[in-house]
Amino acid sequence: MKQYPKVVVIGGGTGTYAVLSGLKKYPVHLSAIVTMMDSGGSTGRLRDQLGVLPPGDLRQSLVALSESTEIWRNLFAYRFDNGDLEGHNFGNIFLSSLEMITGSNERAIHYAARLLKTKGKVIPVTLTKSTLCAKYSDGTILEGEKLIDYAPAPRARINYVYLSPRAVINPNARKAIETADFLIFGPGDLYTSIIPNLIVDDMDDAIRKSKANKIFCINLMTKLGQTDGFKASDFVTELYKYLGGAMVDSLVVNNKEPDKEVVDWYARSGDAFLVEDDLDSIGGDIEVFRGDLLSDTRYEQSLSDRIQRSLIRHDPDKLAKVLSEVIQKILG
Amino acid sequence: MKQYPKVVVIGGGTGTYAVLSGLKKYPVHLSAIVTMMDSGGSTGRLRDQLGVLPPGDLRQSLVALSESTEIWRNLFAYRFDNGDLEGHNFGNIFLSSLEMITGSNERAIHYAARLLKTKGKVIPVTLTKSTLCAKYSDGTILEGEKLIDYAPAPRARINYVYLSPRAVINPNARKAIETADFLIFGPGDLYTSIIPNLIVDDMDDAIRKSKANKIFCINLMTKLGQTDGFKASDFVTELYKYLGGAMVDSLVVNNKEPDKEVVDWYARSGDAFLVEDDLDSIGGDIEVFRGDLLSDTRYEQSLSDRIQRSLIRHDPDKLAKVLSEVIQKILG
Repeated sequence: MKQYPKVVVIGGGTGTYAVLSGLKKYPVHLSAIVTMMDSGGSTGRLRDQLGVLPPGDLRQSLVALSESTEIWRNLFAYRFDNGDLEGHNFGNIFLSSLEMITGSNERAIHYAARLLKTKGKVIPVTLTKSTLCAKYSDGTILEGEKLIDYAPAPRARINYVYLSPRAVINPNARKAIETADFLIFGPGDLYTSIIPNLIVDDMDDAIRKSKANKIFCINLMTKLGQTDGFKASDFVTELYKYLGGAMVDSLVVNNKEPDKEVVDWYARSGDAFLVEDDLDSIGGDIEVFRGDLLSDTRYEQSLSDRIQRSLIRHDPDKLAKVLSEVIQKILG
Repeated sequence: MKQYPKVVVIGGGTGTYAVLSGLKKYPVHLSAIVTMMDSGGSTGRLRDQLGVLPPGDLRQSLVALSESTEIWRNLFAYRFDNGDLEGHNFGNIFLSSLEMITGSNERAIHYAARLLKTKGKVIPVTLTKSTLCAKYSDGTILEGEKLIDYAPAPRARINYVYLSPRAVINPNARKAIETADFLIFGPGDLYTSIIPNLIVDDMDDAIRKSKANKIFCINLMTKLGQTDGFKASDFVTELYKYLGGAMVDSLVVNNKEPDKEVVDWYARSGDAFLVEDDLDSIGGDIEVFRGDLLSDTRYEQSLSDRIQRSLIRHDPDKLAKVLSEVIQKILG
């Protein structure tokens, strides 16, 4: 029996959602390693009020991997828009309740995964309750993913991020990484979705030990307060700092020009700009894969999030198609 | 193939929970017809805030009939004790979310039943959004199940209860009643759990058309503001008013003396007294079945309800054993 290649997606949030929901249609053995640092919105309140691990990124990845009927996926993504439950999300409540009852975040995920018939595993990067902190170039320190994520501009650059207290890598995450054939980083907010996974203790060691080909999906847009002015190569340089001396092997970048109208809309808001592809000069043994990765959806009213998300975003199917070509090429 | 007798339990709340969770172990085809008038607690808030049908009684009956693993039953019964979700119950949130997504209370029940692997059907007595009202002997009118249920003493007697607006019987409830072999009423709060089912439009007609043997489980204790001073025969007389001219065929009554200590505890509170068995004088063709129906549990801290429930209550297994004997005897 032919073994499917083991693909481990590292991140959290909507970028990881896109990769997982696209790749689940391909013959790969999928796992998602997910950040446990979210402190905003419904997740932040459940975390503060109930003392549970943050459910939001887990929930998104579980729904992304779900192969159950639409009703269960809609249920998990459902967000209440008024009353006591306003802003809370059913999937978050489900995971939190089960964690309260069983005393185990991983058992809660197990039951949610069963209900959602997920293709592949969702693994919290750590089971330590910890806070993401950012040290900025002006000396400021911000504590909490929520603050870092919504940091108002203008702001100094992030020098580095760290966890307080230090968090221990989840042994299941370690095992998945060490036995992976491919590690996929991003797309997603660099400092609040991707790097929080890389700064748990012993993650650097796990990545060094892994023989996996490391693929980095470069973001389409810069993010205010995090990656302002970043070109594609800046993402690579910054990620490198957190990979424990390893270097990514493959880069996946969009080469389709979005509608000028939408780019202008972003430019007027001053929040986000297209990431310039300067990867021809990247050097080393890094291979660059380009393709049309753009979603045709120009307006998104998500069931699962009332925050208006980027109009310029990755299309799960296009992204998965390119990722699958990368995987096929590397496997030979 | 031998057909199981069709047993339809009519009520809601903890009394119906006891009947269902006991009877599900017997070879009967069970359905529960459940009041949709609850307006208190988590249920009342979800009803008011989201515009859903009240989930509480449905949830209790679904859990009672569940044959799934303990974890799902515990999850459905789980009540949050702090934060935004304080006082809310996971099962109520589950049913409300699904009703919001599907636009159908009955589809919500369907999915909950599947998850809980219920043995038998839970049927809302009506799908009309309606309010329970009580007219008292002093002319007072109280609107809302919550107010009637927690009506402070001293209070005049309830003359009658009615629904505003009038509610239409759920066709599935009608069908279950018309084809039933047995209808079981109670135990439970007479005016807030049992009779609310009987005052939906056309329920009297359905009961008249039904050839079912009608069994009434008499409460153990009187209830403040509802059945103060009631003897067993008063329950029968009062129920008769709402049965559309039909009369119950069988009565099930406890004959085990509870601990004096516990009875005294109730007496001191002044809220509830033992219901006196005066059924020897009941007359007609009504058959009286007596047995030890008392739960040995003297203190109950329920997962699903933070309100302290009666210490003197029906034991599901003892009650089901007697009910099963009644059923066997009538079937010959």
